[in-house]
Amino acid sequence: MRILIVNVNTTESITEAIAQQARSVAAAGTEIVGLTPFFGAESVEGNFESYLAAIAVMDRVMAYDQPFDAVIQAGYGEHGREGLQELLNVPVVDITDAAASMAMFLGHAYSVVTTLDRTVPLIEDRLKLSGLYERCASVRASGMAVLELEEHPLRAMEAIVHQAELAIREDKAEVICLGCGGMAGLDEQIRQRTGVPVVDGVTAAVTLAESLVRLGLSTSKARTYAAPRPKTIIGWPGRFAR
Amino acid sequence: MRILIVNVNTTESITEAIAQQARSVAAAGTEIVGLTPFFGAESVEGNFESYLAAIAVMDRVMAYDQPFDAVIQAGYGEHGREGLQELLNVPVVDITDAAASMAMFLGHAYSVVTTLDRTVPLIEDRLKLSGLYERCASVRASGMAVLELEEHPLRAMEAIVHQAELAIREDKAEVICLGCGGMAGLDEQIRQRTGVPVVDGVTAAVTLAESLVRLGLSTSKARTYAAPRPKTIIGWPGRFAR
Amino acid sequence: MRILIVNVNTTESITEAIAQQARSVAAAGTEIVGLTPFFGAESVEGNFESYLAAIAVMDRVMAYDQPFDAVIQAGYGEHGREGLQELLNVPVVDITDAAASMAMFLGHAYSVVTTLDRTVPLIEDRLKLSGLYERCASVRASGMAVLELEEHPLRAMEAIVHQAELAIREDKAEVICLGCGGMAGLDEQIRQRTGVPVVDGVTAAVTLAESLVRLGLSTSKARTYAAPRPKTIIGWPGRFAR
Amino acid sequence: MRILIVNVNTTESITEAIAQQARSVAAAGTEIVGLTPFFGAESVEGNFESYLAAIAVMDRVMAYDQPFDAVIQAGYGEHGREGLQELLNVPVVDITDAAASMAMFLGHAYSVVTTLDRTVPLIEDRLKLSGLYERCASVRASGMAVLELEEHPLRAMEAIVHQAELAIREDKAEVICLGCGGMAGLDEQIRQRTGVPVVDGVTAAVTLAESLVRLGLSTSKARTYAAPRPKTIIGWPGRFAR
Amino acid sequence: MRILIVNVNTTESITEAIAQQARSVAAAGTEIVGLTPFFGAESVEGNFESYLAAIAVMDRVMAYDQPFDAVIQAGYGEHGREGLQELLNVPVVDITDAAASMAMFLGHAYSVVTTLDRTVPLIEDRLKLSGLYERCASVRASGMAVLELEEHPLRAMEAIVHQAELAIREDKAEVICLGCGGMAGLDEQIRQRTGVPVVDGVTAAVTLAESLVRLGLSTSKARTYAAPRPKTIIGWPGRFAR
Amino acid sequence: MRILIVNVNTTESITEAIAQQARSVAAAGTEIVGLTPFFGAESVEGNFESYLAAIAVMDRVMAYDQPFDAVIQAGYGEHGREGLQELLNVPVVDITDAAASMAMFLGHAYSVVTTLDRTVPLIEDRLKLSGLYERCASVRASGMAVLELEEHPLRAMEAIVHQAELAIREDKAEVICLGCGGMAGLDEQIRQRTGVPVVDGVTAAVTLAESLVRLGLSTSKARTYAAPRPKTIIGWPGRFAR
Repeated sequence: MRILIVNVNTTESITEAIAQQARSVAAAGTEIVGLTPFFGAESVEGNFESYLAAIAVMDRVMAYDQPFDAVIQAGYGEHGREGLQELLNVPVVDITDAAASMAMFLGHAYSVVTTLDRTVPLIEDRLKLSGLYERCASVRASGMAVLELEEHPLRAMEAIVHQAELAIREDKAEVICLGCGGMAGLDEQIRQRTGVPVVDGVTAAVTLAESLVRLGLSTSKARTYAAPRPKTIIGWPGRFAR
Repeated sequence: MRILIVNVNTTESITEAIAQQARSVAAAGTEIVGLTPFFGAESVEGNFESYLAAIAVMDRVMAYDQPFDAVIQAGYGEHGREGLQELLNVPVVDITDAAASMAMFLGHAYSVVTTLDRTVPLIEDRLKLSGLYERCASVRASGMAVLELEEHPLRAMEAIVHQAELAIREDKAEVICLGCGGMAGLDEQIRQRTGVPVVDGVTAAVTLAESLVRLGLSTSKARTYAAPRPKTIIGWPGRFAR
Repeated sequence: MRILIVNVNTTESITEAIAQQARSVAAAGTEIVGLTPFFGAESVEGNFESYLAAIAVMDRVMAYDQPFDAVIQAGYGEHGREGLQELLNVPVVDITDAAASMAMFLGHAYSVVTTLDRTVPLIEDRLKLSGLYERCASVRASGMAVLELEEHPLRAMEAIVHQAELAIREDKAEVICLGCGGMAGLDEQIRQRTGVPVVDGVTAAVTLAESLVRLGLSTSKARTYAAPRPKTIIGWPGRFAR
Repeated sequence: MRILIVNVNTTESITEAIAQQARSVAAAGTEIVGLTPFFGAESVEGNFESYLAAIAVMDRVMAYDQPFDAVIQAGYGEHGREGLQELLNVPVVDITDAAASMAMFLGHAYSVVTTLDRTVPLIEDRLKLSGLYERCASVRASGMAVLELEEHPLRAMEAIVHQAELAIREDKAEVICLGCGGMAGLDEQIRQRTGVPVVDGVTAAVTLAESLVRLGLSTSKARTYAAPRPKTIIGWPGRFAR
Repeated sequence: MRILIVNVNTTESITEAIAQQARSVAAAGTEIVGLTPFFGAESVEGNFESYLAAIAVMDRVMAYDQPFDAVIQAGYGEHGREGLQELLNVPVVDITDAAASMAMFLGHAYSVVTTLDRTVPLIEDRLKLSGLYERCASVRASGMAVLELEEHPLRAMEAIVHQAELAIREDKAEVICLGCGGMAGLDEQIRQRTGVPVVDGVTAAVTLAESLVRLGLSTSKARTYAAPRPKTIIGWPGRFAR
Repeated sequence: MRILIVNVNTTESITEAIAQQARSVAAAGTEIVGLTPFFGAESVEGNFESYLAAIAVMDRVMAYDQPFDAVIQAGYGEHGREGLQELLNVPVVDITDAAASMAMFLGHAYSVVTTLDRTVPLIEDRLKLSGLYERCASVRASGMAVLELEEHPLRAMEAIVHQAELAIREDKAEVICLGCGGMAGLDEQIRQRTGVPVVDGVTAAVTLAESLVRLGLSTSKARTYAAPRPKTIIGWPGRFAR
């Protein structure tokens, strides 16, 4: 089974870290292919960049010319998943949904700890649209930008743990979701420090994508995610023009 | 005052019809500029096309090199408005929100009559995100594709009136919103046939944009729609690369 | 175009201030007529007074013997708007709804800062009934009674700014609505001090009422706001007896 | 114990029927006093009439010069209960809330069958405000006006039973609430014909009011229903002027 | 009229206290019978114990061999009420629902003060399922275990009053519900110290059960609470085997 | 890895069918152990039976004396999962949640097709409590009792397909969940006849349980599902007595 995991930003080192994290839980026989968009922002922290990433991710996946069995969109709270679901016949898993979905099996309420405060409303909105918000205790910002996670790992860890503890104590979260693809790999340490289960969206998404493939399930084409109707598309990116 | 009204598809005749409709209600002294995206689909009827339109609309507005006072995004239930709100310092009005917002002053519940069934969930989701769904009685599809509205105006009228009547009788709608930029101009006739107020998003958006400008109000930059952070963006469209 | 703006209390100086505020944004050609109820409380801060105001406003409007094109009910969170909508064929705009409706175009969430704590639940309930509560971050009380706003303008300003800042920081409001007709005129100063858009319901309502008139839209008579059925009404106020 | 039960319309025969119905379940030692407002409409079927009734009910109760232990507002879905709660120190029970509240002990979902379609949104809104709407399967109109219930009792019975059956079969109601004070006394017959419990708001309210009095409980004065602040009230009804 | 009031734990002294509290408000002619389950935990503070109590309560009621008119389940936030409703033809009142239902007649919002933090989510969930959560301001834990209420009555009183005051000041509760059968009898003292109405579920339930019986109302057998279908049941407890 | 899959009824043939269905998707190296409760009803179709099953499932799992890595509760819409989560340190997956959770990755809305109408409210309530109801289009009953599924497989298939088609056409479901453990194995055929993805809770639960184990995640012990406090439990089943 081959699973494409697509970064939403254009920073290769993050793609690499995400793919490696994915491989750490992939079943024997699952090949993880990390993809970086051909265009877009070095990190995604807001609506404009997220919309650009939406198209960049679709573009990158459509440019991939080998067979694959599932796609993971590895951005937290980003736009675009529904577009991929229209374009593809294989299952699509967004790490935002994957983490929340798994967290709901582990506790009565979960919180997300993410990067900057400005991304909080995007994450809340995406969870609402996915129907996974009801048991969300809070979405909290660590104040660390995406690229700072790599640059200042110790500071990032402290900031995330601090918000996780507040989520547990004040918001009554029983599970923490790591709200950024770039946080991949921090879960075990945060679990030890907070004492609650910590869900990393990337690894959760890998097992969910594998599960869907094993179960022979893929996106319904009955209505919302039916294939786009044939029509004239002009301009950019070339891959979408017909 | 100059208001840009941006079509979400690349069909020039629709841009022209929308702009004309906008001008029909614009105040003396308001200049309406219709813009067509440089890329994208000839009509937008689904998530993939809508995401592409989101970027195409932002791209088109950023390419406009004259001063302007407000922007109207003239697609019903489309993605992208939040991106424009980040990029601009002038008010942004989406016709989906404009129609719903106006309808709520006119009756206890409103329904939207749109084009194809596949677009219904998008409209519902956008209304939910905008916080305007609570008094939405239903979103109904006429079964007419966007481009068919121009080709078969009589059939379109019948199909829209039929769904509007069902919305009034079965869903208890008291106001009808026309759920497609391409329906601009049909409102008066449908009002006469159904006996309830009919809100066209384009004209509603013009008066709302004018109102915001007159009141000196524009998008809050406090959190969700703060300007994008300075960062490296690669690839095309060139306008976004930095 | 003539727009009636009706105060909900019997204090003439507030009617005058409201009308003046309304005129400051009215379009050329719009005549603003300020009306004071013939009976009721000097200020409205609770349900009993608000119900009395509901009837007093209807009574005052029915007593007005000149033609008019729209009515604005200038009380924040008060009862009665639905009654006016039944009695009239012209659009009715409540300043509570007007402010919230406009605020939702400007940010992801808005807060209302009002007068006394006891009025907070009334405002919340009216926003819920109007379907405009979903994006309301909070309703906060400044602790200043309606009549104190005029008597102690400096103290009022400080108290309102303080609550607005809390709304922004703690409740994540991105826009502030002024929750009292008597706060008309404070918006610009509060905007400067808080850095976020501040919506005054009176001026918002004027532009919305003008918009509805220009669009040829008025209250739906299909169901909830159909004209009252002919029936015997006895007693008070005389204008309603038949 | 003396309980005032106040009709919302000015038709004495309805007051009498309501009081009689109330007496049929009152405990030994409970005196039921039926009151008819001094002004208002002969029947209440819409917002204007309901707002007028709100004040008329408060006026009537304030004019009552004997001691009493509780007040029942005997209109279904009407405005005004919150005003009474401010003015009085004894418990206030609205028959809309009483019926819904009792129904929720009897089944998983309840429906209301009321008079005219135009009153349905008022009832829905009042139930929402009271926090009793979550388990409401539907509010259905029999199409019979309030005064027709007395004039055409057989036709009324058939129309109510028909809607009750639809509520059970289509909306999955397990309990029926009679949605009009004027339906008092029909419960047993409708129960026999539909096979489900039928709650009459008047009798439910009597037992609830008695219960609150026996438990020594009355309206909280902590916030929303605190006594009105002392202030100048002008005009008529004289009882409110100070 | 005979009302069974069933404790959810196996501590006889609590059964006795509950029955005594029930008798303090029962009408003349109402016989209160306190029942203790034959099996289960000495106190119920969590899901496992609550599920066990659910069956133990049904078992105890089915073992009661005299006629009775209503059953009260005297555990706060516990499972099981729906099972009793299926098995019986008389009304079933849970004290959780009874307290909330009564509280909603007394104020705009209520809070529950309960025992341990771990039981808070159970109470919230039960109120949600009962459709009585909308006006719940908060559920707060005093930190006192069920059995500590008897052992340390002074400390318990202080802890409960402290949380009640926080509920009033921070959560805007206007009424307090005592969230444990073991708190029966504390209501008057807490009311005096907090100044708001305090509802004890046990006494509320008694008057509600009496009311339902007097009104001739019992559980709907139309759908959710229809009698169990005849089928083979093996094993434990013997009373259920057929 | 060893996963216990516990039937909720006492019919061994259903346990066997469920276990076989589970094995059909289990990964190499996963051992599936099917367990039948020692007591309870031959099929579970209502609250009383479901509450009994809740305890019977806990009892059966606690009686299992070998190590295991996860537990699946194989009843649709049944009580009890939270109790297991308290008692165990390994992950617990309910097939109701598993199916809904998987379905949400496959379409914008899902419907459940279950057995008898009387079980519909239980399923709706369990999905609400699990926070997975937002995207549920409907829960529909086939009218076939649990044991009839085995006896009349052809009739059952027709009835399920009929309701699935109604769910797709009228309720706008894009995915169907099979709402009964006894429907295991019907998914492929129903998918072929309806054209939409069909999720069987048993197989979904197996892959989810495996995923949680592989990710090293288990139930949070922070609050709701903390281990029961040590206390005296009397009576039977002996396994719970301490």
